[in-house]
Amino acid sequence: MNLEYPTALQSLILHLKRLPGIGSRSAERMSLWLLQQPVGTLAALSEVLVQVEQEIKPCASCGFFATREGCAICQAPDRDPRLLCIVEQPTDILPIERTGAFRGHYHALGGRLAPLDNVGPEDLRIGELMDRIRTGEFEEVVLATGADVAGEATANYLAEILRSSNVRLTRLAQGMPVGGGLDTADSLTLHRAFQHRRNLSHDA
Amino acid sequence: MNLEYPTALQSLILHLKRLPGIGSRSAERMSLWLLQQPVGTLAALSEVLVQVEQEIKPCASCGFFATREGCAICQAPDRDPRLLCIVEQPTDILPIERTGAFRGHYHALGGRLAPLDNVGPEDLRIGELMDRIRTGEFEEVVLATGADVAGEATANYLAEILRSSNVRLTRLAQGMPVGGGLDTADSLTLHRAFQHRRNLSHDA
Repeated sequence: MNLEYPTALQSLILHLKRLPGIGSRSAERMSLWLLQQPVGTLAALSEVLVQVEQEIKPCASCGFFATREGCAICQAPDRDPRLLCIVEQPTDILPIERTGAFRGHYHALGGRLAPLDNVGPEDLRIGELMDRIRTGEFEEVVLATGADVAGEATANYLAEILRSSNVRLTRLAQGMPVGGGLDTADSLTLHRAFQHRRNLSHDA
Repeated sequence: MNLEYPTALQSLILHLKRLPGIGSRSAERMSLWLLQQPVGTLAALSEVLVQVEQEIKPCASCGFFATREGCAICQAPDRDPRLLCIVEQPTDILPIERTGAFRGHYHALGGRLAPLDNVGPEDLRIGELMDRIRTGEFEEVVLATGADVAGEATANYLAEILRSSNVRLTRLAQGMPVGGGLDTADSLTLHRAFQHRRNLSHDA
């Protein structure tokens, strides 16, 4: 009875609505915009989607996005083989890369410990991590899981099981975000910033 | 030198960034989310895009989205053949349909007059409109272009060229939005609401 969009268009709207941060109205607006593009625009996007699904797989070693040609991190000749940085997700790697502060290797766990959601150590890439540390030449392992409760718990767990291995364990510093005034930091961050305060007279 | 996402993933991010309302960060988040979906998700979205591009074409008569089976509006047997509603874009049709206030036919112009952007009458579907009015049995034509300057100009132009034809011309009412207090309306809307005030004693 009621007039609706053609089925294919409705289906596109439903697909786009599932994307993170996209509601019904945005999905509709995006779909109608796509529909009104020059011929070939949708076909091109469609092809890229297939390409992404077929070509990009997680690297079996570090967990970053790899192609058939291999992993851009694991194959790079100029990375420090003594440094390993453990992150929760492969998507955490590029933000670290962009800082330029780290030029070692990475290991994405594929998640974090969350007992309430039934995510235990066996669900993360911890066996692979132990293998890499045993067979590799790592001297320092940076625990770069999140600064929230689950990230801390995961870092604590890893610190526990890695204590016996012959590597130095470090954790990302916590404190004031750069550029933030005291009034903008939450009290827990401010608390940590006091706890971890640096001794300037010694540094100097 | 710098680590980047694989080419296919970068390409997907660029494509999504072109969507309306989507910036770099959203496009990246959406792409990474898509990449981490179960196998087949991207293929399904890809297929829908191809389907939309291949199946949906503007109806040659009214301009709404039509499929190979035809146009859901022009083919509907229960619509009033005496009423024609002129809108700027095919996307203006569904919002009107959802109100349930109109059960006639539509004509999407495909735009509005905008001399500064070089959009003149010959760029809109006005020839098709004149043909429909000449050959059809329309008794009333509702000018439902936007209530902004360009929409008003387009309505005025259409009113001018349709004045000689044997149809009653009407224009959507302007006034206070339902549910809005006097303090929320802008002064031009309030001005129109005064100009077009209804005579309750006559209506009663």
